[in-house]
Amino acid sequence: RINGERLWASLMELAKIGATPKGGVKRLALTDLDKQGRDLVVGWGKEAGMSITVDQIGNVFMRREGRNPALPPIMTGSHIDTQPTGGKFDGNYGVLAGLEVVRTLNDRGIETEAPVEVAFWTNEEGSRFVPVMMGSGVFCGAFSLETAYAAKDTEGKSVRDELARIGYMGEQVPGQHPIGAYFETHIEQGPVLEDADKVIGVVPAVMGLSWYDCVVTGMEAHAGPTPMGLRKDALQVSTHIMQEVVKIANRYPPYGRGTVGMVQLFPNSRNVIPGEVKFSIDLRNVNDELLNTMHEEMLAFIDKTRSDSGLAISIERVSYYPPCPFHPDCVGAVREATAKLGYSTMDVVSGAGHDAIYAARLAPAGMIFVPCKDGISHNEIEDAKSEHLEAGCNVLLHAMLERAKI
Amino acid sequence: RINGERLWASLMELAKIGATPKGGVKRLALTDLDKQGRDLVVGWGKEAGMSITVDQIGNVFMRREGRNPALPPIMTGSHIDTQPTGGKFDGNYGVLAGLEVVRTLNDRGIETEAPVEVAFWTNEEGSRFVPVMMGSGVFCGAFSLETAYAAKDTEGKSVRDELARIGYMGEQVPGQHPIGAYFETHIEQGPVLEDADKVIGVVPAVMGLSWYDCVVTGMEAHAGPTPMGLRKDALQVSTHIMQEVVKIANRYPPYGRGTVGMVQLFPNSRNVIPGEVKFSIDLRNVNDELLNTMHEEMLAFIDKTRSDSGLAISIERVSYYPPCPFHPDCVGAVREATAKLGYSTMDVVSGAGHDAIYAARLAPAGMIFVPCKDGISHNEIEDAKSEHLEAGCNVLLHAMLERAKI
Ligand SMILES: NC(=O)NCCC(=O)O
Ligand SMILES: NC(=O)NCCC(=O)O
Repeated sequence: RINGERLWASLMELAKIGATPKGGVKRLALTDLDKQGRDLVVGWGKEAGMSITVDQIGNVFMRREGRNPALPPIMTGSHIDTQPTGGKFDGNYGVLAGLEVVRTLNDRGIETEAPVEVAFWTNEEGSRFVPVMMGSGVFCGAFSLETAYAAKDTEGKSVRDELARIGYMGEQVPGQHPIGAYFETHIEQGPVLEDADKVIGVVPAVMGLSWYDCVVTGMEAHAGPTPMGLRKDALQVSTHIMQEVVKIANRYPPYGRGTVGMVQLFPNSRNVIPGEVKFSIDLRNVNDELLNTMHEEMLAFIDKTRSDSGLAISIERVSYYPPCPFHPDCVGAVREATAKLGYSTMDVVSGAGHDAIYAARLAPAGMIFVPCKDGISHNEIEDAKSEHLEAGCNVLLHAMLERAKI
Repeated sequence: RINGERLWASLMELAKIGATPKGGVKRLALTDLDKQGRDLVVGWGKEAGMSITVDQIGNVFMRREGRNPALPPIMTGSHIDTQPTGGKFDGNYGVLAGLEVVRTLNDRGIETEAPVEVAFWTNEEGSRFVPVMMGSGVFCGAFSLETAYAAKDTEGKSVRDELARIGYMGEQVPGQHPIGAYFETHIEQGPVLEDADKVIGVVPAVMGLSWYDCVVTGMEAHAGPTPMGLRKDALQVSTHIMQEVVKIANRYPPYGRGTVGMVQLFPNSRNVIPGEVKFSIDLRNVNDELLNTMHEEMLAFIDKTRSDSGLAISIERVSYYPPCPFHPDCVGAVREATAKLGYSTMDVVSGAGHDAIYAARLAPAGMIFVPCKDGISHNEIEDAKSEHLEAGCNVLLHAMLERAKI
């Protein structure tokens, strides 16, 4: 069993770097604070006797050698960058749970056949630089190193320059690092476990997602003198599409999701009929066929709305991740470890993308979820119980040992 | 008949001050550009032999004496401040049409029994300082001089300081300036005249308006892991209210108006269910009883939505102007002048507030509308035809002469 207090203490220590007044963390990727966080974790890794490798996109691999160094490592990891108003646990838990596994192996003097590695991936959040899950994406070849290097923040600073500046542009070519199996522990970021009063979520798969930008163009006009019948109100037309996004998701339970999270009006003035509305659409499902059906139904509704309203409506898909089923071996290892340890459990499909979906393209992968308070994440008030974090870490220990062999 | 070319030339000359690349004008109230515009118009007034009075809120009255100086003046006017992305005609036309009337009287050596005055009112637009229609509002006692003086722009500069700085803080106590009758020519700022192919809009009344701020509070949560049934999506609930605003207006034709022009989401992120949505509601009608019915129906719908959704919804009325019927004598004078001159005409209720609604609290008042291109105003592409502006000015001349007596 791992040391829950030590895990908690490390989480709290790391959370001091970029701590916000409301109890959260702001530690954006490749900032000075990210460097401080990386240095702290790397220091802990070295103290635990691990060797450090950094690749060209700044992914860090901390290695505890196995009896057979030729075997590909059993890896765990996550990320330590945060949202601008992020919490203490998202990502950080996955990295420090891995560190706690190694510390526990050291305490007990346990040797493994395969090496054990703890990774943290660069810029998972995508808050400062897009695309999200950048480090693991480059690692698995989803997009090129050059694409990632060229990404700029709102001030025009590039990933390449910022990586070099904080001293985390390594030598290793991304992907030239073998993985035997990959596990990731993470807070659920949703309310399902808490709602069902379960401690461990076994994650069979991650939902696929489609992101869109939709722009409805009407004609801006004065709210007073323009009769209702002569209006081209871009917001009114938009509201029908916004509602349909939710209706489509509700037609495909239990894993259909539909969200409009971002809306921008032009000119956005109290007494001007909106001339243009731009909004995001986020559709998800764990079944790719259903996700595609949702996609088609949305396009059909937009076509109908365009002809009904006479307004110009553009829709562009800006991101697409297919659903990612995890490997039966890893899912099984998590399930068995949970059973052995006697934690209450259920299967929880991950609604959010994680570095594990990219790792899964290269090696068998699996995830372990623990509850977070009220299902809230990407928020400074994000919270989790120490005993749940400890339980998830114990499951991680046993699942990794099952793969790494004692 | 007035001189249409001279009127047009003066409009184009004034439009150079604050001209924008897209052909509009940005001349915000009490800026250096406003001072330049004021100086130009006051210079023209003096050249036309008028005496100038400035009151303590910076309203300017340019007076052509009558045979009987004891009679209250027959006044016309409007404003020369503009929106940040304003046009050449909104307000400016009303002031320069008044100047053109005086120039025409001078050309023909016509004396009037009552004095004739051309006014321009401070900060009608309300873009830099709220409330809107500030100068005429203080003049008629709708709010106090101190309230207006204390208003600050986004940089913290006050009306009092800016008025003094540009040299337009006069001596006269606002309202201590008699008015015999008030006329205002204005572009329609709506599409009704153009749609009906008429040149002159006789304005029987200005609609009343109610402005509200509505805030719907749900719970922000991650768009992926949060099942549809466990969401408190503030945007989805808001869309129903947004649609109802339009439905309410459509239930009270032809003068019901309902607009949501401003929307703000928190946190406004693509993969976060909106936790809070703040939006404006603008309801108008020319009949105060109907406007009140619209108000009540909206509150009832919000109550129903609150209990149906379980979300917190606050609604606050932030402005209210009752409908303003114009005086039969002034409306009649406009109607007769239009008939005498043979212009095509129709009645057009003003959907937008104007300085005339405040002037109407002190004296008989009326307005004259002319078409503007595509009904567009508060926009750099605002446009109007020279012959329509000329026609409106001719109607103004004859309506004023009817009241001032030759
Ligand atoms: N875990 C996480 O928030 N990933 C970002 C992409 C997503 O919205 O799923
Ligand atoms: N004319 C004008 O735009 N007035 C501002 C107040 C309103 O929206 O009616």
